[in-house]
Amino acid sequence: MYNFFAGPAGLPAPVLRRAQQELTDYAGTGMSVMELSHRSPWFEEILHRAGAALRRLMQIPPAYHVLFLQGGATTQFSAVPLNLLHRGAAAYLDTGVWASKAAEEAARFGPVRILASGKASGYREIPDFGALAVPQDLGYLHLTTNNTIYGTALHALPRAGSVPLAADMSSDILSRPYRVEDFGLIYAGAQKNIGPSGLTVVIVREDLIGRAQPHTPLMLDYAVHARAGSMHNTPPAFAIYMAGLVFEWLEAQGGVAAIDRINEAKAQLLYAFLDSSSLFRPHVQPPHRSRMNVAFGLADPALEARCLREAEAAGFQGLAGHRSAGGLRASLYNAVPIEAVQALADFLRDFEQRTVTSA
Amino acid sequence: MYNFFAGPAGLPAPVLRRAQQELTDYAGTGMSVMELSHRSPWFEEILHRAGAALRRLMQIPPAYHVLFLQGGATTQFSAVPLNLLHRGAAAYLDTGVWASKAAEEAARFGPVRILASGKASGYREIPDFGALAVPQDLGYLHLTTNNTIYGTALHALPRAGSVPLAADMSSDILSRPYRVEDFGLIYAGAQKNIGPSGLTVVIVREDLIGRAQPHTPLMLDYAVHARAGSMHNTPPAFAIYMAGLVFEWLEAQGGVAAIDRINEAKAQLLYAFLDSSSLFRPHVQPPHRSRMNVAFGLADPALEARCLREAEAAGFQGLAGHRSAGGLRASLYNAVPIEAVQALADFLRDFEQRTVTSA
Repeated sequence: MYNFFAGPAGLPAPVLRRAQQELTDYAGTGMSVMELSHRSPWFEEILHRAGAALRRLMQIPPAYHVLFLQGGATTQFSAVPLNLLHRGAAAYLDTGVWASKAAEEAARFGPVRILASGKASGYREIPDFGALAVPQDLGYLHLTTNNTIYGTALHALPRAGSVPLAADMSSDILSRPYRVEDFGLIYAGAQKNIGPSGLTVVIVREDLIGRAQPHTPLMLDYAVHARAGSMHNTPPAFAIYMAGLVFEWLEAQGGVAAIDRINEAKAQLLYAFLDSSSLFRPHVQPPHRSRMNVAFGLADPALEARCLREAEAAGFQGLAGHRSAGGLRASLYNAVPIEAVQALADFLRDFEQRTVTSA
Repeated sequence: MYNFFAGPAGLPAPVLRRAQQELTDYAGTGMSVMELSHRSPWFEEILHRAGAALRRLMQIPPAYHVLFLQGGATTQFSAVPLNLLHRGAAAYLDTGVWASKAAEEAARFGPVRILASGKASGYREIPDFGALAVPQDLGYLHLTTNNTIYGTALHALPRAGSVPLAADMSSDILSRPYRVEDFGLIYAGAQKNIGPSGLTVVIVREDLIGRAQPHTPLMLDYAVHARAGSMHNTPPAFAIYMAGLVFEWLEAQGGVAAIDRINEAKAQLLYAFLDSSSLFRPHVQPPHRSRMNVAFGLADPALEARCLREAEAAGFQGLAGHRSAGGLRASLYNAVPIEAVQALADFLRDFEQRTVTSA
C-alpha cells in the first residue's frame, strides 16, 4: 500500500509502530497518553519535548513563540487578521483557493488588498511578485507557501521590508529550509508534514501579539496561548505526542536539510518521468512546481479515470486530483519514502506502455 | 494502576486495545486512521458511525445538529454568545470557575446577567434556582451541569420557559440520562466521558443557528459546520474515531440508562464510606453532590499530603484536588470501573485505620 493522500497523509512507519507499542502503556505508567492529565508531569514533558524539537528543526529564534493549537489552518484565516491587523490594510498573495479563502475571511476584520493573483492561470502559475513594491504601511502580507490543490509553490519570498510576512505553511512546513526570521508568523495544520489532524502549529514573533482586536474570541488570541505555554485549556494531547514523535523521527533522518534533499530527489524522479512521457502531462511548469504535490493529467478523461482505477487496484491510494482541479495528484510529504515514488513512476510508465501499445 | 484523573481521564480498556490493534492497519487498508484522507470512504464512515451512535445514545431528535469540533469548551465560551445571543441578555448560573469564565467571555459579546451564584459557599453548593423567575426576554440561559473542580452537580433544571438552555456538559455528558429536548444547545469537551482531548461535541437545535454575530470567526459559526456535516475543514479524525469506539462500547454496556446505574453505585460506594469516616470529610453535602467528581479532604493538611503520597505509591493516579479547591478528588467517569472505586474506598479505609490506631 502506497499512501499519496493530500492530507491527512502517511506518517513515518517507525512513528506509528512506536505509538502502537505505547498505546496502552506510556513510559511504564500503565496508562495511554490519551488518559494522562494534561497537568501530569508526563504530558508536560511530552509538550516540552515537542516544542524543543520543533525549535531545533526550524532553528526558531527565542523571540518567537511556538504554539500548539486546535482548529486547523481555517481557524487561522480568522486569527491572523484578528491578532495582526493593527494598522493599515492586510495584503494577500492569491495563489489558490485556500489563499483566497484566507483573504476573504480577513476582509471581515479589516481592509484587504490582493497584491497579486494567479487566478487567470487557473492557479497553475505563481504570479510574478519579484518586482512588486510592497507598501510599507501594510499590517502584514499573507502568503501560502505551497498550494496543495494545484501543485504549485513559492520559490522565493516577496521583498516586504518592514511588513511582517504571515505564511500558511500547512503543506510544506519542515519539507525544506525556511528562515523563520523572514516571517512574522507561520502557521500550519499538522496533517501533512507534522502529525495527525486536530493540531495546528503557530510560530509567531513576540512583538506582534498582545494587541488583538477587541472582539477576538479568547481562544483565538495568540497572547493567551503564549502566556499559558499552549495550556490555556486542555490541548490536543495525543496529536501533540504524535507530532513530537514525528519531529524526533525527522531529526534522526538528519533534520530539515536532509529531508530537503530527499524531497528534491522524490519530486525530480516523478517530474522527470512526467516530462518525458508522451501520455501524462504535468499541470505545472518547472518554475512554479511544488515538490509536495505533483499534479498531472491525461488528455483523455476516460483514460484518466481508468488510470486512477488501476492505480488504486495496484495499491496506490489518494491519487485523485482535488475536485476543483481534476486530474491526478501525488502528494510526496516527508513521510512518503522514495521507494513509493519509484513504484508510482514505474506503475505510470507501465500504464503508458500498455496504453500506447494497445492504441 | 487506577486512573482517577479529572480529565483527560481513563478510557475503556477494550477501546484502547482495539485502537492499539488497528493503529497501523485500519480495516485492512494497510493505513492508520491517522493516515486516511478525511474525504476517503473509510473516514466518512467513521464520522457517520460516531454521529449515529451518539444520536442513539442520547436520543437526539432530528431537529438537532451533532457537530464534532475542535478547541475545547473554552472555545464554546465564545461561540455560544456569538451564535445564540440574538436578543436581550444572556443569563448564566454561576456554579464555579468554569461557569464564571463562560459568563465573563460572553460579556464581551453582549449583556450578561448572573441569575444565581454559589460563590458565597465557595461553590460547594448549587445556588437554589427552584423559585427563580426566568425573564422570558433572555437570549439563552447558560448552565454547567457538573462542576469538576468542586464536585457539585445540578440535579434539576431551571424552569426557563421559552428561553433556550445552553449547557456545558463537559464532565457529565453520557453519564446520566438528559432529555436533549430540554436544551437549545449542549456542548462538551471530549476528554472526560467521550474520548481523547482535542474534540468538542456540540448538539444544537436547528432554529437557533444561522444568525451568528457579524464578527464571528467562520470556524466559530455553528451554521458553517452544520452545513458541512462537521467537514468544513479537516476534522480531528483520530479523536472522532476514538469517540466512536467509546460510543459503541457504551452501547454494549447497555447505553446511558445502564451506565447511569453503575455511576450511581460507584458514587454511593465512595460517598457512603466518606460519610461514615471519622477522618475524611466530603466537601459537598448530599443535595449538591456530583457523581462524576467526589471531592473530600482531611482536617490536617500534613495528613492530607501523606494520604495523597501513599495513594499514588499504591497506584491511585490523579487524586490531588484542583489547585483552587485543595483536598482530594476522585473522578469517577464512565470508564472508571466499580472495582477501582472499591479499591480506593478500601485504601482510604485502611489509611484511616492505620492513622487512627497510630494516633
